Formats: sequence, C-alpha cells, structure tokens
Amino acid sequence: MTGAGTNKTQLGIAGGPAIILVRPQLAVNIGMCARAMANFGLDDLRLVSPREGWPRTDARRKGAYAAAAGAVHLLERARVFDSVEEAIADLNFVWATTARERGQGKRVEPPAIGMAQSAVAIKAGEKHGIIFGPERTGLANDDIALADAIITFPVNPAYASLNLAQAVLLTGYEYFRASQGETLPFATPDHSPPADRKMLVSFFDFLETALEERGFFRPLGKKPLMQINLRNMFHRMQLTQQDVRTLWGVVVRLVEGPRTKVQTRKRLGPKQTPKGTGKKAEE
Amino acid sequence: MTGAGTNKTQLGIAGGPAIILVRPQLAVNIGMCARAMANFGLDDLRLVSPREGWPRTDARRKGAYAAAAGAVHLLERARVFDSVEEAIADLNFVWATTARERGQGKRVEPPAIGMAQSAVAIKAGEKHGIIFGPERTGLANDDIALADAIITFPVNPAYASLNLAQAVLLTGYEYFRASQGETLPFATPDHSPPADRKMLVSFFDFLETALEERGFFRPLGKKPLMQINLRNMFHRMQLTQQDVRTLWGVVVRLVEGPRTKVQTRKRLGPKQTPKGTGKKAEE
Repeated sequence: MTGAGTNKTQLGIAGGPAIILVRPQLAVNIGMCARAMANFGLDDLRLVSPREGWPRTDARRKGAYAAAAGAVHLLERARVFDSVEEAIADLNFVWATTARERGQGKRVEPPAIGMAQSAVAIKAGEKHGIIFGPERTGLANDDIALADAIITFPVNPAYASLNLAQAVLLTGYEYFRASQGETLPFATPDHSPPADRKMLVSFFDFLETALEERGFFRPLGKKPLMQINLRNMFHRMQLTQQDVRTLWGVVVRLVEGPRTKVQTRKRLGPKQTPKGTGKKAEE
Repeated sequence: MTGAGTNKTQLGIAGGPAIILVRPQLAVNIGMCARAMANFGLDDLRLVSPREGWPRTDARRKGAYAAAAGAVHLLERARVFDSVEEAIADLNFVWATTARERGQGKRVEPPAIGMAQSAVAIKAGEKHGIIFGPERTGLANDDIALADAIITFPVNPAYASLNLAQAVLLTGYEYFRASQGETLPFATPDHSPPADRKMLVSFFDFLETALEERGFFRPLGKKPLMQINLRNMFHRMQLTQQDVRTLWGVVVRLVEGPRTKVQTRKRLGPKQTPKGTGKKAEE
C-alpha cells in the first residue's frame, strides 16, 4: 500500500510517505507517533533500533499501545531495521527533519512545501519517507547525510523544540492537506437555505414600518441613514430563510406584547403583509 | 500582552489568541498544551475548572511541569476560571474546536483559514480565543453555543480523534504561519554562490573534451543527444561554484590516475583551460 499513492481502505485514508523513527528512546512516543499517523492516514511506520526494543515486554508494549489510542494496527505492522540505510533502501526520496542547521548544503523546506512536493511525487508512483531523530538529540549528521533534503518547522525561535509525535503530526497534517485538500469531517451546516433579497427586503419593510409607526426614526432627516445602518446589521448576519422567519416572529411578539390566550401559532412567513400578520396568526 | 498582536520578548515571539482549556482532565495534558503554545509563541493560557485542580499537589503539579518541558512560564501565568463565560469575557471573538458536527448552524473553518482571520484581527487590536473541550468528550453543546464560529481539523475520517495538545499544536502552528509567515529557524545554507552559465559551460567543455578524446561518444551520430542528456543531469544538480570546482577536480583525478608524489594541490578552477589544468596543478 505504501508508495502507491493515497487509497481508501476500511481504515479510512491510507498511503503517504513512510515515517521512519531513528533510535526512538521511549516506546510511549512510538505509540503517540502511530496515533498522529492514523489521524492523517499515514500507514507505513518503520523503526530503526528503538532503544527499548521491539516487540518488547508486555508492560512496556502496553505503554506504546495505550499511547497509540486505537492506532494499534500501525504498531502491529511496524517494521524494525538495524540501520537507517536499510530502513530507506526502497525509497526514492527521503526528507530529514531537524530543528537546527547542520551545514550540509541540502535544500531546506517547511513541511507545507515539502509535503506538497511529496504528495505530487507519491501520486505519480514514487516512494517517499521522512526520518525523525531520537527525542533528546535529534538526527545524527550521518543520518541527515542520507537524506535528499531537509524539513524544518516554522516555530518560535526561543522555543523551537517540538516533541517527536508533534513533528510527525505536523508533517502528516501537511501531507493530508496537500493530498486530500482541506477536507473537513463536516462543514457549516446548511439546514435552511440562505434567504434571498426579496425575503430580506420584505422583512426590512415589515420591521421599518413597525418602527416608523412607533416614532423610532428621529430626527426624520436621519431616517435614510438609520435605515441603511439597520439593514447592514442584518446583512452581516447572512440570514437563512429560517432565520428571517424567526426574526419576523420576534418582531411580531415585541409589537403585540404577551399572548392573551393559549394558541397554536402558525409560523409567520414573510409573504404575509406586516399589517395582517399579527391578526392572522391569532385567529 | 495578549490581544496586543504579536510581540517579541525575551521569551521570543508572544501574543496571539488565548488558549482556553475547558474542564481538562489530566494535568499532564495541560503541560503538553503549554509546550505546544510555546512552540508557536502563544502565551495566554486559561483553564476552566481543571479536574485535577490548579495549583495542585506537588506531585501532580510536577506531571504538568515535566510535560511542559521548559514552558513553565505559561503554567505559572495560567489563569483559572469557574466557567467558560468568565474565561472568555474579555474576548472579541471565540472559536470552538470540535471533531464532529453539533448542528449549531455556526460557520465552520479549518485552522489554516480560522487562524489567518484571527491573525489579521489580532493585529488590528482585537482579542481572540480558542476553546478546547475535555479529553474524552470534547466541548459540551452549551460551550460551543458561546463561540462565534467553529474550527475543525482536516483529518482521516476513520481516525478523527486528535489529542488535546495536538489540537492546540495545530491551531498554534497555523496562527504562527499566518502571523509570522513561513519563518523557518534556518534556511538552505548558501556558503557558495550558485555557478553561473559561463562556469558551467567551461566545465561541460572540459568534461566533454576529455570524454571525446577517450571515445565516449559512440555512435558519433548520437553525440549531440548524449551531450544534451549529460548536461541536463548536471543542470539538475543546481551546482554552486564550489560544486563545479569539486567536480572539475574529480574529472582531473579520474583522467590523470593516481598522484605520483606528495603534493599540495592547488584548487582547480574553471578558468584554467582543461589541457593546462592538470600540469599546472602538479607543479
């Protein structure tokens, strides 16, 4: 599945660059990386000489498995290598991640650019990978020398240390955005269609007539400006048809005062004339 | 400092939206959120009814402090509130983060769009904040109702659960990118300036003459195509001046064979003619 672009499986989106953790110190961090990978549909986890071994004793293993929070399939399928060279042997392009300059003359990109390039190449059939160094020290210069180019993160220079899973998260996030677009799990709900201008103007007329009758527009010379300001306030709300019906009902109630008897109120619509509305609704 | 845009202090970049953790369950997660904030220069941490209390016993407090990994100043300055209403009272605009639709008819944006909007508004003097729900359940509908709009994350729909610190990290990352540009801690090193075309052509002439003399271009009819392919390979390397000098030396050594005596080699430059180069260098 790796390197074959991005596919949809029963686990959701899959594919993308291999994530290669070089000499990770803590099993729990491996679990957190697996979780971050799963969030963004990456499924090729490779471990180079994990300090706590792999697979490990049940107790430690559980640390990793608990941290993976459900992304256990990635841990089960993780491959272990003795060297970075072996771990990247099948890849066409390798990014090294580092928080500081290493003077190796390699191209340096932010994750948004690097992952956009990888998304294009992976879609065309290339196999890409990203190597991440041990928690405390980061990648050794010899590891970085094996990579084609460097990814570094736009961070506060006074506090540049990202933890391992967070670095994996940001590359996964940018790969997902580049390969899937800004696909959100849900969008702004659109239960009611937006109101059209005719509906809005009917409401404005209704409201302004009611206000006019009650002497709201004073001084009269300012009425045109007051009207514009009032309408602009409502325009900013980007009202749906349901919103307009709700506001219409609000104004009717304010105008008419408390209901005098138990009544099943018909929903008020903007097609009813302002004058007639209240009476009709109380029939 | 909060809400006054983005400033540089002795702690690096500061400012940005307030991060409001609503009923966080674990102190250690508060620490990890503080670390993620520090990575991207956010410095206004607010806690609403943290389950483990705040400040807490030394032992638990240490859990948060260890997880903050140096961002202790944010924990020291964190403010605690009894309700979301109090925590956001001074803000002009509030984002709610959620992984699933809540049917509240609010605008929904990915963090890249939401934080770009906040960066502009904060620079203009507004105070923005982002509320994050408890680890297990996320925000309650009543909390979300207090917000102006919703941020959700582009994630693998089969595995959409981000942990708390990772959600904070992604919003901080996008705020940083929007407010600071794609500012990296270091750039591609540029120790040697790029080679110009004249230097490259000198090298190509040198190499191709040496190859010509050794009968590399066969059949002769294919020489023009072979030359173009060879030059294109080197063009792809985007050679620096130092790179060209290094390659020139490589070709000289391949042509001349092993050095015959201990010698201090002068650096070979493309301005020397190919023929004369070897002899001069061995004087």
